[in-house]
Amino acid sequence: MPDAHAPAAAGTVPAPSAQGPLGADELRALDAHWRAANYLAVGQIYLMANPLLAEPLRPEHIKPRLLGHWGTSPGLNLVHTHLNRVIKARDLDALCIWGPGHGGPAVVANSWLDGTFSEIYPDVSRDAAGMARLFRQFSFPGGIPSHVAPQVPGSIHEGGELGYSLTHAYGAAFDNPELVVACVVGDGEAETGPLAASWHSTKFLDPVHDGAVLPVLHLNGYKIANPTVLARLPREELDHLLRGVGHEPVHVTGDDAAAVHQEFAAAMDHCLDRISDIQRRARVDGATGRPRWPMIVLRTPKGWTGPREVDGKPVEGTWRSHQVPLAGVRDNPEHLRQLEDWLRSYRPAELFGGDGRPRPEVLACVPGGTRRLGASPHANGGLLLRDLPTPPLERHAVEVDKRGSAVHEPTRVLGGLLAAVMEATAERRDFRVVGPDETESNRLGALYGATSKAWEAETLDTDEHLARGGRVMEVLSEHLCQGWLEGYLLTGRHGLFSSYEAFAHIVDSMVNQHLKWLRTARRLPWRRPIASLNYLLTSHVWRQDHNGFSHQDPGFVDHVLNKSPECVRVYLPPDANTLLSVAEHVLHTRDYVNVIVAGKQPSFDWLTLDEARAHCARGVGTWEWAGTEDGSRDPDVVLACAGDVPTLETLAAADLLRRHLPELAVRVVNVVDMARLLPAGEHPHGMPDSEYDALFTRDKPVIFAYHGYPWLIHRLGYRRAGHRNLHVRGYKEEGTTTTPFDMVVRNDLDRYRLVMDVVDRVPGLGVRAVAVRQAMADVRTRHHAWIREHGVDLPEVADWTWSG
Amino acid sequence: MPDAHAPAAAGTVPAPSAQGPLGADELRALDAHWRAANYLAVGQIYLMANPLLAEPLRPEHIKPRLLGHWGTSPGLNLVHTHLNRVIKARDLDALCIWGPGHGGPAVVANSWLDGTFSEIYPDVSRDAAGMARLFRQFSFPGGIPSHVAPQVPGSIHEGGELGYSLTHAYGAAFDNPELVVACVVGDGEAETGPLAASWHSTKFLDPVHDGAVLPVLHLNGYKIANPTVLARLPREELDHLLRGVGHEPVHVTGDDAAAVHQEFAAAMDHCLDRISDIQRRARVDGATGRPRWPMIVLRTPKGWTGPREVDGKPVEGTWRSHQVPLAGVRDNPEHLRQLEDWLRSYRPAELFGGDGRPRPEVLACVPGGTRRLGASPHANGGLLLRDLPTPPLERHAVEVDKRGSAVHEPTRVLGGLLAAVMEATAERRDFRVVGPDETESNRLGALYGATSKAWEAETLDTDEHLARGGRVMEVLSEHLCQGWLEGYLLTGRHGLFSSYEAFAHIVDSMVNQHLKWLRTARRLPWRRPIASLNYLLTSHVWRQDHNGFSHQDPGFVDHVLNKSPECVRVYLPPDANTLLSVAEHVLHTRDYVNVIVAGKQPSFDWLTLDEARAHCARGVGTWEWAGTEDGSRDPDVVLACAGDVPTLETLAAADLLRRHLPELAVRVVNVVDMARLLPAGEHPHGMPDSEYDALFTRDKPVIFAYHGYPWLIHRLGYRRAGHRNLHVRGYKEEGTTTTPFDMVVRNDLDRYRLVMDVVDRVPGLGVRAVAVRQAMADVRTRHHAWIREHGVDLPEVADWTWSG
Repeated sequence: MPDAHAPAAAGTVPAPSAQGPLGADELRALDAHWRAANYLAVGQIYLMANPLLAEPLRPEHIKPRLLGHWGTSPGLNLVHTHLNRVIKARDLDALCIWGPGHGGPAVVANSWLDGTFSEIYPDVSRDAAGMARLFRQFSFPGGIPSHVAPQVPGSIHEGGELGYSLTHAYGAAFDNPELVVACVVGDGEAETGPLAASWHSTKFLDPVHDGAVLPVLHLNGYKIANPTVLARLPREELDHLLRGVGHEPVHVTGDDAAAVHQEFAAAMDHCLDRISDIQRRARVDGATGRPRWPMIVLRTPKGWTGPREVDGKPVEGTWRSHQVPLAGVRDNPEHLRQLEDWLRSYRPAELFGGDGRPRPEVLACVPGGTRRLGASPHANGGLLLRDLPTPPLERHAVEVDKRGSAVHEPTRVLGGLLAAVMEATAERRDFRVVGPDETESNRLGALYGATSKAWEAETLDTDEHLARGGRVMEVLSEHLCQGWLEGYLLTGRHGLFSSYEAFAHIVDSMVNQHLKWLRTARRLPWRRPIASLNYLLTSHVWRQDHNGFSHQDPGFVDHVLNKSPECVRVYLPPDANTLLSVAEHVLHTRDYVNVIVAGKQPSFDWLTLDEARAHCARGVGTWEWAGTEDGSRDPDVVLACAGDVPTLETLAAADLLRRHLPELAVRVVNVVDMARLLPAGEHPHGMPDSEYDALFTRDKPVIFAYHGYPWLIHRLGYRRAGHRNLHVRGYKEEGTTTTPFDMVVRNDLDRYRLVMDVVDRVPGLGVRAVAVRQAMADVRTRHHAWIREHGVDLPEVADWTWSG
Repeated sequence: MPDAHAPAAAGTVPAPSAQGPLGADELRALDAHWRAANYLAVGQIYLMANPLLAEPLRPEHIKPRLLGHWGTSPGLNLVHTHLNRVIKARDLDALCIWGPGHGGPAVVANSWLDGTFSEIYPDVSRDAAGMARLFRQFSFPGGIPSHVAPQVPGSIHEGGELGYSLTHAYGAAFDNPELVVACVVGDGEAETGPLAASWHSTKFLDPVHDGAVLPVLHLNGYKIANPTVLARLPREELDHLLRGVGHEPVHVTGDDAAAVHQEFAAAMDHCLDRISDIQRRARVDGATGRPRWPMIVLRTPKGWTGPREVDGKPVEGTWRSHQVPLAGVRDNPEHLRQLEDWLRSYRPAELFGGDGRPRPEVLACVPGGTRRLGASPHANGGLLLRDLPTPPLERHAVEVDKRGSAVHEPTRVLGGLLAAVMEATAERRDFRVVGPDETESNRLGALYGATSKAWEAETLDTDEHLARGGRVMEVLSEHLCQGWLEGYLLTGRHGLFSSYEAFAHIVDSMVNQHLKWLRTARRLPWRRPIASLNYLLTSHVWRQDHNGFSHQDPGFVDHVLNKSPECVRVYLPPDANTLLSVAEHVLHTRDYVNVIVAGKQPSFDWLTLDEARAHCARGVGTWEWAGTEDGSRDPDVVLACAGDVPTLETLAAADLLRRHLPELAVRVVNVVDMARLLPAGEHPHGMPDSEYDALFTRDKPVIFAYHGYPWLIHRLGYRRAGHRNLHVRGYKEEGTTTTPFDMVVRNDLDRYRLVMDVVDRVPGLGVRAVAVRQAMADVRTRHHAWIREHGVDLPEVADWTWSG
């Protein structure tokens, strides 16, 4: 398609003869808006003074550091201009996700033009002084970042890490039946895995209960230094691909502004008509077939209307326009001249009055009030957020008559609570549970009593729980689950992501970006708090009997705890009632990422609901019933634990100690809220030293059985007085397919090893302790032989119950 | 396609009338092989005795814990059987990647049948005793895992975490022109992002220099609990999708064994003929168009030939056959009877002699020697690995006449070395550099003097450095980069992955799995060492002037250091020559993941090549020239640093201290190899306490300026005597778009803050130190005002050079 790469004359006067739905006035107005946005984008990248070119450009008007991405900006400006038009013409409730969000100058320019930027940041007024500030603040220390970021009104999507635009768009559209979510997908981004998978979201969008997503695949042809794969496919092959993912593509190709305006306006009209038609047929006529949703393929030159050549090399229509096409403007008079020509090619005097205000023609296409893309409440989801109705926990809690004797599957108990929430939101439809094909496997099947799994593709008689409009979402892509949920939360709804613990790492980078968004948004007073992103990590490292080493990794907690403490919370409830209590809490929190690690296998109940509530509220506490202190003095040793399996082994160890070394004063401390281990100054949940010392002592041995990598406990606790006496057992990469108890033995986290640790670390124990230690070592030796012979655990382990 | 889901009679006698390329004898023999493999797969899941059903099945023959994945196994067995046929018929050099590698029983069964399993594990002989061991060891404590894992001969791909099969297949095929890499892609896996992106690898496979990849998309229709998206597309839509990614699909659909054998054999023949034709046209005729590679869509029932119904619910052809279709065999006589019927449906007496040896007809299709899939040297890449030719570093090193005055871009210097390696391997073609569109941006452009970027799609006149057969690979997908490189390394070649530091997290989970593979393989004597996976993380957290917060995250190092110490190495070379030295070292290592974090921006040269070599060999050391010790006693304070920017700030702080507090004895310690900070027992590179104490002292303040999250240094060093005096500065999530120096100020890592830290922590300093501290604080205050006004750094920072 060489024509797509040929440079266009910047700011060409629209040819009135161009064919299409736009009359001459409207065409001229749209082009004026587009030119204004382009002018403002270039201004942001280059200028720190003389914004209206009131005088010839001089080096001192130019920023000392030229930062920003020009290449994608004219395309984004085109799409924004035309979205304005159709929103106004159709009174659309619309949102746009800007996949190439590194083109920050474009989206910022548009929100300045539609007035929202100045409403939020009054010092950046919509006049000459404001324009000067708009230009200067961009990518400038103390100003706004170079990408579309939380600071930009109308956005829910940071454009830095590519690949998530389309999942965010779908997340926004779910359960928003009146919303149209446009989504510009860059052809660079389209090469990423998450984006490639996102196209199949068409099988999960319900035309009755959900809104519409209108993808605009922008083929500007280049990445930083390379052509893009999709731009170099023959059109027929690209069409195959897009039809293959369930779309009907409409193509707009060109570099003649007037013709592209006409074609793009026609394409938008066509797609929106098609969307209305699809929705009407589903909602009114009751059609049930999966629709083929329309989409637009927009092929325009990268850096369109920018410098055609710089220093003898082609720039417009090539990767060289990706960032700053003229790099030497301050020192190179020829570059300075080119920049001035470029800016003047948009004919700013036609666009802005002498006072810098956009002329009426420029603003003719801009809709009003909250219809403006910059002012959509969906893009500031906290405005729309309602508190989640949660039923009394008593209805779901398990009875605990005797600790450590009855077993429940904690996540199955949680499933009851989630089902009740799902039921309570049946009308509101603002709660979803996502997961990669594991809701049932994770024992959350009770949800299917209240809703179904979203599914728009073919169904068979043997299928179960699949339905249009279901609010459980299962797809074998953690990326899609995460992206959908992020989009859903950012637009003011609630949700939970249940996943295998190990495979949460698949979305490490996505959770990074979401946390960055939250952290930045919290510092913007105009951004209202949104519901937290809640992870339930189950099928955890200790219970991979089926799957072994590849499914074992407890490090997501470490990853999350590296991030801003104001936004991260990690909970390891040790049984069913503590899981309920934690879950109820996190579902009501705002602006956090909450990570809950909990088991799905049958395991002992330790705490009644009331005890669980009190314990979880404090986040850490002594379990007096488990220890052997008499309260008269510090204990001889503290057995600390965090996580269901470590808690089991710790209690079994306490049991052994009570029986074999009854004179030893043992304290058992259980940790639910990991951040409590941090110093008070390091995390909002951090414990003061006084509280920590009272729990863990300042000088007694602490044997800490932890769910994950042991050094995390050291990283959290290294500042404490008693740190030198802290001895941590945890997962040390000894993973495989084996029995649950063999797993803890392999990682030296088992009850017998913990007792040996106590004997090794408590000073002044006598000869009987040595014998006890030997007995423990002997059981471990017996275990090794037994397990290989029988493939199951020793009877004394399998049959153990709490005897305290 | 309801017919695909209808259950088939298990072990149907092939109807001799079925049409296709197979004669009656061959058909019978192939079916016998398939039935034998199915029998062996079921046996592995269920039996711990009575492997040949010599007597009626009793509960005690059944394993106490039933673990494994049956659903995918018959499909994998079918593909393996037919691969045997074509390998033998065509004397193919072939490899197969088993995407649904959780079907471990199938691939293990086949490698037992072809003899390779017994050759590697002689106790699992190809007879009755060996069959008993084969069954018992599967997913049994002390045995082999349930997935295809390093223990399985012929594999380079663990099937636990889904999504990477196709990239591994392409990685194996690159630069292996005679190799055919079959790749079974499960329809569950096909929903993942990485797999969805992998299809576009067709644009990077050169029919001249590379081998062929033959994808077999296996639509068995279900995941754990859901149908799959691709299986529920109308055939036309699926065909659009597959053509859209550049393939010509051939469909094989059915549940009648004989018909499927015939159709699948015909499809394999067709595809292999097509591949030969494509290769001949490219290699002999010089055709340059991008070929449309053939592929197979195989649609057979999940759990085919397994129990049709269990407890009144359909199982064969549904998700219920995913794992263990009959779960209650030990206790439920009806389940036991069903299992026996199931096993006997394969007619084991026809397949195995009374001694348990497979009958000749069963083995008729099996190729010989290293043509067997279980014996391919490509799947044990260390067998093929040759040491990499690296030129003398002297040719690439920078001259350092005066430290800290001249600047170089370290990665540009490295680019020269990599280009030389690329040149030296021009004939061998066993070295590739991969990266997401950043090779030039990362200053490695010298590579293009030695090779090009692989590109098979359309090219334009304006393109640069794109060519068929190029060995730099750029695609905007970290997943593809990682997967390609893993496949390349696992088949015995070398490579390097250059990436933005922050976006390495995109492949966190992939590097986890690769490390698990390495760790397991190292413990298998028959697996030969392979070249390490080398990361160059540049565009790092401190230099995101263009991109800001979204591009800032130094946590990949933390992630990697959680994994098995025997396999992970992390290097932070502080300048150009140290980067060269580290790079040369890692390119010759085996079985590691090496992470190098290095800058691409102009930065000072500190060490000559000889000094750099000595420093990097030790991994940590005192820079005497930078400190003010006289050697007569311990220093007053140690300034430690790791990473290029922290080293700069530390040296600038040392410079300030020398000028302002000359009486203070300052030691400067630089750390290149992060694992050296660990205790000797924790990592092979760990330092003994004596060495650590000699460097860092036992009791003097250590101000440690670290590149990443500061607590990593505490996690590495908490066991050291001097830990309580360790004060670490690093990145604390204060990211944004700003100047390099403002970034360090925001994170309290700047030279002035470091001097203040020294004053705060060295006891007994006088009033002059207080004044110095105030002066430092004043500069920081001035900085804040200056940066907002001018957008550039203070002149005294911008112009600073080392004055020592």
